Amino acid sequence: MGALTLVSTALGQAPIAPDSADLSARYRETADQIIDAAMSGNDAWRKMEELCDGIGHRLSGSPQLDRAIEWAARALERDGQENVRREPVLVPHWVRGEESLMMLAPKHQKLAMLGLGGSVGTPLVGVTGEIVVVANREELDALGERARGKIVVFNAPMPAYDPEKGTGYGQAVTYRSNGASWAAAKGAVACLVRSVTAASLRSPHTGALRYDDAQPKIPAAALAIEDVLMLERLVKRGERVTLTLKMEAKTLPDAPSANVIAELRGRERPDEIVVIGGHLDSWDVGQGASDDGGGCVISMEAINVLRKLNLRPRRTIRVVLFTNEENGLAGARAYAKDHESEMPRHVAAIESDGGVFAPIGFGVSVKPPLNQDLAQKQLAQITALLVRVGATRASGGGGGADIGPMGRFGVPLLSHNADMSRYFDYHHSDADTLDKIKPDELNRNVAAMAVAAYILADMPTRLGEGTP
Amino acid sequence: MGALTLVSTALGQAPIAPDSADLSARYRETADQIIDAAMSGNDAWRKMEELCDGIGHRLSGSPQLDRAIEWAARALERDGQENVRREPVLVPHWVRGEESLMMLAPKHQKLAMLGLGGSVGTPLVGVTGEIVVVANREELDALGERARGKIVVFNAPMPAYDPEKGTGYGQAVTYRSNGASWAAAKGAVACLVRSVTAASLRSPHTGALRYDDAQPKIPAAALAIEDVLMLERLVKRGERVTLTLKMEAKTLPDAPSANVIAELRGRERPDEIVVIGGHLDSWDVGQGASDDGGGCVISMEAINVLRKLNLRPRRTIRVVLFTNEENGLAGARAYAKDHESEMPRHVAAIESDGGVFAPIGFGVSVKPPLNQDLAQKQLAQITALLVRVGATRASGGGGGADIGPMGRFGVPLLSHNADMSRYFDYHHSDADTLDKIKPDELNRNVAAMAVAAYILADMPTRLGEGTP
Repeated sequence: MGALTLVSTALGQAPIAPDSADLSARYRETADQIIDAAMSGNDAWRKMEELCDGIGHRLSGSPQLDRAIEWAARALERDGQENVRREPVLVPHWVRGEESLMMLAPKHQKLAMLGLGGSVGTPLVGVTGEIVVVANREELDALGERARGKIVVFNAPMPAYDPEKGTGYGQAVTYRSNGASWAAAKGAVACLVRSVTAASLRSPHTGALRYDDAQPKIPAAALAIEDVLMLERLVKRGERVTLTLKMEAKTLPDAPSANVIAELRGRERPDEIVVIGGHLDSWDVGQGASDDGGGCVISMEAINVLRKLNLRPRRTIRVVLFTNEENGLAGARAYAKDHESEMPRHVAAIESDGGVFAPIGFGVSVKPPLNQDLAQKQLAQITALLVRVGATRASGGGGGADIGPMGRFGVPLLSHNADMSRYFDYHHSDADTLDKIKPDELNRNVAAMAVAAYILADMPTRLGEGTP
Repeated sequence: MGALTLVSTALGQAPIAPDSADLSARYRETADQIIDAAMSGNDAWRKMEELCDGIGHRLSGSPQLDRAIEWAARALERDGQENVRREPVLVPHWVRGEESLMMLAPKHQKLAMLGLGGSVGTPLVGVTGEIVVVANREELDALGERARGKIVVFNAPMPAYDPEKGTGYGQAVTYRSNGASWAAAKGAVACLVRSVTAASLRSPHTGALRYDDAQPKIPAAALAIEDVLMLERLVKRGERVTLTLKMEAKTLPDAPSANVIAELRGRERPDEIVVIGGHLDSWDVGQGASDDGGGCVISMEAINVLRKLNLRPRRTIRVVLFTNEENGLAGARAYAKDHESEMPRHVAAIESDGGVFAPIGFGVSVKPPLNQDLAQKQLAQITALLVRVGATRASGGGGGADIGPMGRFGVPLLSHNADMSRYFDYHHSDADTLDKIKPDELNRNVAAMAVAAYILADMPTRLGEGTP
């Protein structure tokens, strides 16, 4: 029996056996009831329409994000949730402005681009330079002084989705994140990266960059794959390629924003908390439907379904809709900081930020003294109840950008996992729109999130507490 | 023995049995030699780079089309082709200008659109109206007077590619072609159509419309699928959706242009002609790579391969790179008219205008007195030699927009067929770029075209002449 269970006992409740091998049996009927309710509703879809069609994309600092925060709080109140509140957060305020990339030589042509979030702008006349195209950092290093005064183009492809290996996002995104400073270190005047996607119909994908303070800040943008490949072909044919990049991008003073919070209060241990959520902000393109409107809505709807069913778990389920995941994580940091005293009573945090396509299951990561094997075993007992919605996989490796700061306090972190085979086709682009999401899959994700949150909040012991 | 064979006999050649069951055997070695040469070269890819990257898209009347015509003629001369010439054609000259589509209500948002080719423009302030969304013509008719003064949005989806049924282009394109006049007949002020594609990453696809002279000409544009679906969702939720369409589009006086022609002259019957080709013009988006740079280049390269091999067939192979297929067919009509006296000696015409993805084979259509069964049988004997490149299917239903006018003179029409499963994903959009084409598949198409053209030009009898 672990120290944490002793606390529960001290609170006057009957001692509970740490063996939770009966989670599946204990919650089977309840899980079926939740799934039935989630699958028969259309409230989740209506919320997606209100958020995506009614408000659209919502970058930190934008009026649209303010509207989304207002909308979410009202929707949660309308659903009858408890303790609905906006917790203030100051967020970075980057604005894109007008931008363009023109090829001047060997022929005049407009290229398909999106400035990277956080990039500095260019002078009004733009930055004009000859390009060098490199496949990776090693090729950049090999150029030495030949990159000085040039526009560096990184042609680092993202591998296509692989059922075994998953997405190839991680290995490609480093050029978007760091390429500008790597290029600046070589004296480059601007940086262009191949959009981080494996599918393109001339589709640029934006995303955040990180400037290394030791290097000059140079403007940076993502190009559609097609345009990067054309530039590479032209250079290989011996053409001298000259481009002009114009970006009005700038960072304004931090803007007021907020995390939106609502609760389904626990019936026995309301001070113990299961956080579920996603991030309400998005990039300033598309509709922020998969990234991460869906993650917000399935969390909002999970407690809506439970409340309608009068299913009040032992502990509190707290929905947290984080602000500023995309370019700062200010909402994530503020939540962990502002709730530091509560962290020991956060029994789990689930983030959904990988889209709401067909659900797959959940991943979990716990730290000692909690037991990872036990946590995974318990999670498997939960996902065994999610066969009807396909969310049967219980794996290690839970987490999420917004719940990450809680992990440093020892909070068990779970990721809600759905099919990501198409996710990065839309991610951070104009194609991240509601039509890509299927109402049935959305509801299946609501069901999975509601069942997992309910059991984690209601199970006798805490997740991972004890020995397997 | 048909009259045509008698002509050959009269020309002093030995009488030839009309039975051509030996085409496979007769040409096996030659076909292998052609395939070896086509597969080992990179001239076709180089030509694609010169056309797509060096010149880019090339709408009728544009300086880019003039450059493409100049480039093609020079490339054919550089290859040592005979009778390289530009045959003048006056072509329609439509220009897009600036264009935009803004949603004013229920929220302000820019929509992803491309004006339709041939559309009239709008006044400078644009055309503003409330929308009605209809799935088809019947729904438009059912609206009656409720379409008056409105912007009609046609949400007619193109079915996804099906290996059995092929592309769903035909059934959807009618709204792009005719929707504007159907809407105008109901008093609509503008027409928006769902882009004719089954795949979209917020990708509008342009293409020609046809105005019915009996109706007012109203401006028309294609919307990305995503935007049409959003408009439909908003209307279904009861929102009043108002848009402003601005288009500078206009039709200028016809512009001078040309079909580009080159020949590999026949060794015995040079006045008998096998035409092979595609169209050099494209829409004013993307690079015109699949539509129809590839069709032009494989034809150019087919005779290049034959000439390098010193394979001069009995009859003449004539490459015709038509102008103005996309919005007028002026090149196709001019060729058939200017060469009317030669039409009886056109023994076949092959068009490639369905992309140069993995080759599949050829389709053929002949008219009496030629025999369709015999023509297909002979074609099958030819495609039996194309196993190595995958172009094994000999089917009925040959033709093509540019060779169509020749069909009216009884010329046997063949279509070069390649895998079209992705073709319409790129078609008439910014995504029709060279990267979609694989050099190996390009070469396989060169091989298929060269073998087919060679045998059709060299076989003892004419295609379809006699009885099976």
